Amino acid sequence: MSEQVEIDEDEAFGITDRLVAEVLAAVEAQDALAVDALLDPLHAADIAHLIEQIDSRDRRDLITVWKGGMDGDTLSELDENLREEIIALLAPAELAEAVRELESDDVVDLVEYLDDDQQEAVLGALDAGDRVVVEQALSYPEESAGRHMQSELVRAPEHWNVGDAIDYLRSEVVLPDQFYHVILVDARLKAVGYVTLGRILSHPRNTPLLELVEDTFRTFHVTQDVEEVAQAINHYHMITAPVVDDDDRIVGVITIDDAMAFLEEEAEEDLLRLAGVGEGSLSDRVIDTTKQRFPWLAVNLLTAIFASMVISLFEDTIAGLVALAVLMPIVASMGGNAGTQSLTVAVRAIATRDLTAANVWRVIRREVLVGLINGLIFAVVMGVVGILWFGSPMLGAVIGVAMVINMVVAGLAGTVIPVLLERFGIDPALASGAFVTTVTDVVGFFAFLGLAAAWLL
Amino acid sequence: MSEQVEIDEDEAFGITDRLVAEVLAAVEAQDALAVDALLDPLHAADIAHLIEQIDSRDRRDLITVWKGGMDGDTLSELDENLREEIIALLAPAELAEAVRELESDDVVDLVEYLDDDQQEAVLGALDAGDRVVVEQALSYPEESAGRHMQSELVRAPEHWNVGDAIDYLRSEVVLPDQFYHVILVDARLKAVGYVTLGRILSHPRNTPLLELVEDTFRTFHVTQDVEEVAQAINHYHMITAPVVDDDDRIVGVITIDDAMAFLEEEAEEDLLRLAGVGEGSLSDRVIDTTKQRFPWLAVNLLTAIFASMVISLFEDTIAGLVALAVLMPIVASMGGNAGTQSLTVAVRAIATRDLTAANVWRVIRREVLVGLINGLIFAVVMGVVGILWFGSPMLGAVIGVAMVINMVVAGLAGTVIPVLLERFGIDPALASGAFVTTVTDVVGFFAFLGLAAAWLL
Repeated sequence: MSEQVEIDEDEAFGITDRLVAEVLAAVEAQDALAVDALLDPLHAADIAHLIEQIDSRDRRDLITVWKGGMDGDTLSELDENLREEIIALLAPAELAEAVRELESDDVVDLVEYLDDDQQEAVLGALDAGDRVVVEQALSYPEESAGRHMQSELVRAPEHWNVGDAIDYLRSEVVLPDQFYHVILVDARLKAVGYVTLGRILSHPRNTPLLELVEDTFRTFHVTQDVEEVAQAINHYHMITAPVVDDDDRIVGVITIDDAMAFLEEEAEEDLLRLAGVGEGSLSDRVIDTTKQRFPWLAVNLLTAIFASMVISLFEDTIAGLVALAVLMPIVASMGGNAGTQSLTVAVRAIATRDLTAANVWRVIRREVLVGLINGLIFAVVMGVVGILWFGSPMLGAVIGVAMVINMVVAGLAGTVIPVLLERFGIDPALASGAFVTTVTDVVGFFAFLGLAAAWLL
Repeated sequence: MSEQVEIDEDEAFGITDRLVAEVLAAVEAQDALAVDALLDPLHAADIAHLIEQIDSRDRRDLITVWKGGMDGDTLSELDENLREEIIALLAPAELAEAVRELESDDVVDLVEYLDDDQQEAVLGALDAGDRVVVEQALSYPEESAGRHMQSELVRAPEHWNVGDAIDYLRSEVVLPDQFYHVILVDARLKAVGYVTLGRILSHPRNTPLLELVEDTFRTFHVTQDVEEVAQAINHYHMITAPVVDDDDRIVGVITIDDAMAFLEEEAEEDLLRLAGVGEGSLSDRVIDTTKQRFPWLAVNLLTAIFASMVISLFEDTIAGLVALAVLMPIVASMGGNAGTQSLTVAVRAIATRDLTAANVWRVIRREVLVGLINGLIFAVVMGVVGILWFGSPMLGAVIGVAMVINMVVAGLAGTVIPVLLERFGIDPALASGAFVTTVTDVVGFFAFLGLAAAWLL
């Protein structure tokens, strides 16, 4: 990183707060030369990051001062939520120049969620040929391999040898910016295998390419879910995933760097869904964030009211012994936490294919046992706390038994609920939390107050 | 996927439950030929996945029947928690043969957490040269780039041209299994740039390599955190990350497929930590899982008891109006959920470098505003519920105001606590949850019961 003095020495990537401040100062001074000098040495990913971190007024001023500086790579790197805002600030000629340099998958990624006017403006800037490719990709379903593949690839007839391939690559053909394989096709353009560039380079010119193909070659259909393809790329350590149409003809590739970005997004989505946060980013407006958070809170309110109804069944019991009101949240809270532990493990294991029909019963048994053992330990602790705090061994017994029941139920519900949701085609990351905490709240309050009503009064 | 009939047509990767059943049947019948026939066509990643999914007795039987089938790639793909178990089942000669075919980073990954005896057995199987390389890597800190880099790479003097590179690659040198760049070094072996294989292949033999170098070249130090390097690879869309020593001499590379696996692991770790689950996997034993889950539950018990103490301050108030005991969990629960939403967004944004000193105040202000708006909406809802259910407008007012207070506090605590923890060097994914729910429980109960004591009695 020696060439970029502004990057923090301890950090592997990213920009410093000082750099952000300097850019903002230069923007405020309307000093276009200084802005250029600060931004020019930066990678597009870092410029995008900087644009995301400043507020919307500063963004507008920056784009105005930094005339013509915005290129296609930087646009591609920008957070989806900001692209419309930024594209609206660009002059048509500036936008056209920026998108023309992009590969087809980056153009698709850029335009797929733009409104119609902006989409037309971008597509209109492309050459006719590129435009056809982009429109073809947009015709595939959202989140499909066809939508996200890069159509730029290098293919070769299967009967070629190393020399043929080198001569072809050295000819005047337009090559993709980055490519790692030459894909071999038969006379009907069906993909039959691929050869890494390293193997081509390290073999004599007369070696047939078919002798050098990788034995792990596999193809993906255009309608395959792109996240599945990304997971396969990770699972099989692939660099290039060839995408084929109904006739097994090669139509594009998904490369590992795009797959990596997909998996990162997907992991983030699962994390945020588990926490009841919809899609969203720090650069969203307050009103958008409020709307994203609202549904989960509304569901939680319903389940909380449901749990309160369980409590209200025991109003007389609580009136008879107020200590119950003091202690009851502990049982519900421990069950909720144990349930969240189990469901998080289950949701993740379902996503990574580690939890399957082959081991689901073993996993359920394990979670129940773990709940039982931890439940017994905490039952003893809480029994002692009950006795010491309220001087009542019987109250200690009630909270202890309720704790064991709720933690066993938590282990069971935390595993079974995500598995069932998955089987019914519902995203377990999105919906498990509400179901599991409802179960542990209801069971926790019911067990504790019910046992208290039976044993104490 | 046409060549692997056992793979589910709808799935991009993985193995079918039917295949697992067939393998287990063949193992039970001690039919070595059938086991071989089933496993041989599979990718090492799928075999490892299968071994992870069956129970430990079946694993032992499988290894016994599948004599000599276990290769280095399959060992590398296995879950860390299973490696000791499997390695202990292998005959020394079998183990030696398996590890000799691996690249240096895979050997390091395989042995770094083995006990000393097993580590010695694996290292002893290596050639002297390979052993030195592995031991050198093990001398770097855990989680450092030096520990996880692959030492096999292709470098070339900076004055070479395309023809020199091709002749060198075609000579008898041992090349890495996979490589994507030739790294240029000066006379002192200092890395000065790299060239993609695609560029070498597409240029005439007399083109100097220095004319073809990528303008985004950057290097990483051996002691740099490997996760940071993986994030940088994703951020800058790199395929190869060169690793250098104190003198800027190239000593290894981290490739994008390893970086992808690191980031996946890291995302999983963050997710599990947020849920209070330590490291662990589905193949852990009950006792190990119980131990991993225990600490977070113990912390949660303490915070729950603390919240109960707050409730006990208001025992007289509750005795005077039992409806308070019925409604109080709703306020705490809504605050807890809103707080979890804010903290999850904050923890993730800290991990991805989206939340920095440059925008922390704007994010805090936004979270508080979101909490205020949603709080006001739910305050109205709960006010109405309070009136309808208990016929008391004043009780409705108490729960409404308490709700607003707690959700504003949730937005504030959910952002400030992870930021502060990060600043003090504590992993926010690990510790934020306990702090934030303590705050929302205590504030929720205190606001609701305190207002009730002041306004209702």
